[in-house]
This record gives sequence, C-alpha cells and structure tokens, in this order.
Amino acid sequence: MKIEEAEDLVTKALVANFVSERNARSVAKALVAAEVDGQAGHGFSRVASYAAQARSGKVAGAACPTVSAAGPAVLRVDAGFGFAYPAIDLAVNELTKLSKTTGIAAAAISRSHHCGQLGAHVERLADNGLVALMVANTPKAMAPWGGNAALFGTNPIAFAAPQAEGAPLVIDLSLSKIARGKVMAAKKKGEPIPEGWALDADGNPTTDPDAALSGMMLPMGDAKGSALALIVEILAATLTGANTSAQASSFFEADGAPPGVGQFIIAIDPGCVSGAPFAAQLAALAGQIEAQDGARLPGTRRLQARREARDRGVVVPDHLWGELSQTDS
Amino acid sequence: MKIEEAEDLVTKALVANFVSERNARSVAKALVAAEVDGQAGHGFSRVASYAAQARSGKVAGAACPTVSAAGPAVLRVDAGFGFAYPAIDLAVNELTKLSKTTGIAAAAISRSHHCGQLGAHVERLADNGLVALMVANTPKAMAPWGGNAALFGTNPIAFAAPQAEGAPLVIDLSLSKIARGKVMAAKKKGEPIPEGWALDADGNPTTDPDAALSGMMLPMGDAKGSALALIVEILAATLTGANTSAQASSFFEADGAPPGVGQFIIAIDPGCVSGAPFAAQLAALAGQIEAQDGARLPGTRRLQARREARDRGVVVPDHLWGELSQTDS
Repeated sequence: MKIEEAEDLVTKALVANFVSERNARSVAKALVAAEVDGQAGHGFSRVASYAAQARSGKVAGAACPTVSAAGPAVLRVDAGFGFAYPAIDLAVNELTKLSKTTGIAAAAISRSHHCGQLGAHVERLADNGLVALMVANTPKAMAPWGGNAALFGTNPIAFAAPQAEGAPLVIDLSLSKIARGKVMAAKKKGEPIPEGWALDADGNPTTDPDAALSGMMLPMGDAKGSALALIVEILAATLTGANTSAQASSFFEADGAPPGVGQFIIAIDPGCVSGAPFAAQLAALAGQIEAQDGARLPGTRRLQARREARDRGVVVPDHLWGELSQTDS
Repeated sequence: MKIEEAEDLVTKALVANFVSERNARSVAKALVAAEVDGQAGHGFSRVASYAAQARSGKVAGAACPTVSAAGPAVLRVDAGFGFAYPAIDLAVNELTKLSKTTGIAAAAISRSHHCGQLGAHVERLADNGLVALMVANTPKAMAPWGGNAALFGTNPIAFAAPQAEGAPLVIDLSLSKIARGKVMAAKKKGEPIPEGWALDADGNPTTDPDAALSGMMLPMGDAKGSALALIVEILAATLTGANTSAQASSFFEADGAPPGVGQFIIAIDPGCVSGAPFAAQLAALAGQIEAQDGARLPGTRRLQARREARDRGVVVPDHLWGELSQTDS
C-alpha cells in the first residue's frame, strides 16, 4: 500500500472514533511514518488502542492544543489530554520560528499522551536547520537503581542535527536496556523474551512478556541509565507540570484517567551558536565514524527502511486490517 | 587542613607557575571542592599536571575568558586556551542573569580545558534557582559502537535542579562504563583494573591501567551509551566550534597544543517554564525514590563526603605535598 493510502486509511479509522479530522491526520502521519521507518511498535500496532481510547474518552480526540509564551524563549504547550502529535506539530512549528530568533528555545508540553517515535519529531526541527533535543516521560516501567518498584518510564531521549547532505543525523533511544515496545511485540507474537531484559513485579528475572509488562524493565547502563531516567523525568514531567511516570495511566488500555504525561523539546540554531561552520564539522565527524569498520552512524537502518518503504509501500498485516475495520464500528 | 587553607595552598602553587592570581583562585576552588566532594580524580591529583601545563604554555595561565551574546538567549564564551574554571565562572554568572530573563539560555564555551567535576558547575546554577544541564567533550577515549579506534571522549553529562530544602539534586556521570579517572587512580597506585572496564589499543580486554589509558574505555549501556557520547560530542564540540575529542590533546601531558575542548551549558528557569510548583513536585519525586529500600537519590555519597570534609577538613596526601612543593620551583 502506498504511504498516502495508509495515512488515509488510519485517518478514516480514527475519524470514525470521535477524532477530529485534523487530529486524525496528524496521528496517522506519525503512525505511518513510524511504520515506514521500521518502528512497528509505534506504527499500525497502535491504531486499535488509540481508537479505543478516543471512544472511551480517555484521550480527547477533538482536543485543540494551545501554545502560550511562558518567557521570551519558552513556549508552554497544552495538549489538552488529546493525542500528543497535534501538540508536537504545534510545538515544532512555533519552536522553529522562536529559536531562529533567540538562538535557543524550549517547548514544555503537558497533559499529553504517547508521542511514538521521538526521533521523527526532532528530525523535523533538524529539517528546519535546527539542532534539537527532546525527552518524554512514559508510564512507569523502571525502578530507581537499587529499588524494587517501578517509578520511571522508559523515558526516551532523541536528538537531531542537520547535515549538509542527506537526511539529518537522528539519535533516538529509550533508557530501558530494551524498548518496552519489543516486549509488547513479543507478547503479540506469543513469544518469550530473552533474559536480562526485564524483571517481574517481585523483582525477579523473567522471560514472560506478560510478567515483564506488569513488572519492570532494566535500565541501560545500570545506575547511570537510572540517573538519566530521573533527568528525563524532571524535565518532561516536573518541569512541564505533567503527571509523573508513576502517576500516568497506560498508553494502551482504554479505561481510566488520561495519562497526562509531558514532553520537553529544546531547539538550538547552530548558525547562531557555532563559531565555526557547523555542517562541515558535523560532516567530518560523521565521516570519521563511518570510516571505522563495524561502526555506523545512528539511524542508518531507519533510513534504509524508509527508502524501501517509499519504493515498495508499506504492508498492512492481515490482523491489523481486522483491527482497522473494527475501529470503524 | 581547613578547606580555605587548601585553596590558598593550591592557589599559591599555581601562581608560582605563571597562573594569574584570579585564575589560580578559580582553579583552586574547583579542585579543592572536588576533593571535598570525594572526587579525588578531579582534585589535588590534578595540581601538578595543571602547573606543568601552565609552565609549558600548553594552558594560558593568565588567559582572560570573554563572553559575547551570540543571540538573545545564547552566550558564546571563549576560554582563550586557559583553564576551564574561570570561563565556567563567567558562564554561570552570565547564564544566571540571562536565563531568568529569557526562561532558557545556553552558554557555548570553546578553546577550553579539563573542567573537572561537572556536577559542581550545574550545582551553582541550581543554587541560583535554575535547572541546568551541562555536557563536555574530553580527549578521545571511546570508540563508536562496533568500531575499533577511539573517537569520543568519556564525554560527561551533568544535571542539577534546585530543591525546596537542602542542597540541589545533582546528577553527574561520564559515558564510559567507568570514569577514566578511576583508571588513572589505579595507575597511580600501581594496581590492576577489573576486566570489563576497558580495551587495549588493539581492542582486546585488559586489566593493565597503562594499556587501558592508551586504549579505549567501554561505553555505559553499549550502543546506547555510544550514541549519547555522539550527542555530547556534537553539542560540546561541533556546536561550540571547539576541537573534537579526537583532535584534543591530553589533559595530563604538559607538551603539545592546547586541548581546546568545549563545554555546553543550558540553564532553565523553572518558575518560568513550569505550570505547577516545581519545588513541591520535585520533593514528592525525590521522596518516592528515597522511600524505596536500596534506592537513593544521586549525589547522596557526595553530600556525605562534603559534610565530613567541612567538619574535619581535607587531607593532603604526603606524595601530593611533594608535588605541590615541586610546582613552586
């Protein structure tokens, strides 16, 4: 299926579930882009649960995100308990204008929801010539290091920088050793997960994806990864005034209060900051990485998947066709 | 020895080596503060090599850092190939004023040197009521993931946030699995290092600190830690116009060109950004961490060491007395 057709299909499925046309289009673009980039955990697999949450009112499908100036270089974006993507669209547009004036600017998004593939959001800022850093908090999934109860989300970090040639350099990582979406994918397939990914609710190692999802993910880099998750928690939740990861409800279940998580985005104009030609220096650094056997620039696989999807279109798996048509009920 | 006496002693040792009184005082305060905080790798152990670098002219002991506005919310700080600490003092003072006006502001420091305990710098911003994030690049010590030649430094990240009561919350971590200073310390003591810390120059595991120092450190969190090191490299070097980690000379040897590394600091006014009372929300989050058996807030050991040093003073080891008096030659 062509990318545009897939976007239309997802838009239609969401609109049939009380999502405004404008919001549905934004969500559909993000989900299909994740699918195109090979990030299936943030793609079609989310449509049914998004639609169910819109039906139940857990996510406000017709919410209109608003932006206000919290300071000369800071935007406060209220996602209004709607989907994250329309709020991020607004933040990306406004941040682009503001940061080119001030040199650095930030957007603090609150009352938000699952924001999918973070890298795609910072990539848009980099497409606009900016260096961008984004963090998000997510429902609790990791204990503080040494502890035994989930308190932090997998709290992803993304970064992008414009390159002189080709797509921006994009780095996108969650702070669990393994992305929680991979556990979800194993659950969907009915497969066990490798040891070392997760603990059950009692803090014991597990290979059962259900036990892992109701237990805890292990942080990348042990205590250091846990400390990074706390940084993300403070920026994305405490600073934005959003719910903490421990307060946030599931991104998947249709019942309960809205997750109300937060996102924090910083955009920097390299033309303003750098005393030297940024693009040329970044190209030199990227070249040094690529020149090493076995090393590669982050995002290489994602760009390969994107090229293939643009040539061949995206595949909507049979079981998803079922889910997509169910949402139309 | 009392803290003030130790600062006077180090100041005197540096002034005797062509460091201006003002710069020597700034460096001495930073080194003694690291010693007080239990960060010996950034404390007295640096005095002899700093003095030797000032003698050789590798570091410009009398450099006067300058600051200029690169944009309404961005400062460019030129450390002038002098010590990092006077440049950071300037950045901290100017960032405090600027970020309270703009909501977020950044300082890009170039032509800089070893900046020691990063946490202490962001802590000062947090003491001034700001949330702060700082990154620094350092001489090459880690290969890009999958590669076989050092390209990134251990590239530390530090973060601080003001708390309603007590000292700010401070997180300070290098992106190697183990801080390179610990390998230096093992070398000084003539002890081997544990396996898993480092690789030799051929990429083989080693327990020899010399082989490790001329080889590579392993990143925390494997590929994800390596990706974080690239983010730091781009912010601290590419964006500031500083030397890359691969270009930078040693922070220890007295010969050769100046390291010319960079630091990038972001300061955020929580009163501006947050839609909710930041201090109360941070206290709640900190309380949830401390309530878990086995978990602790980052920085707990550092604050304990600081309390003890303030009560009992700092110990100048015998061999350091020798080094301190040698610098006076």
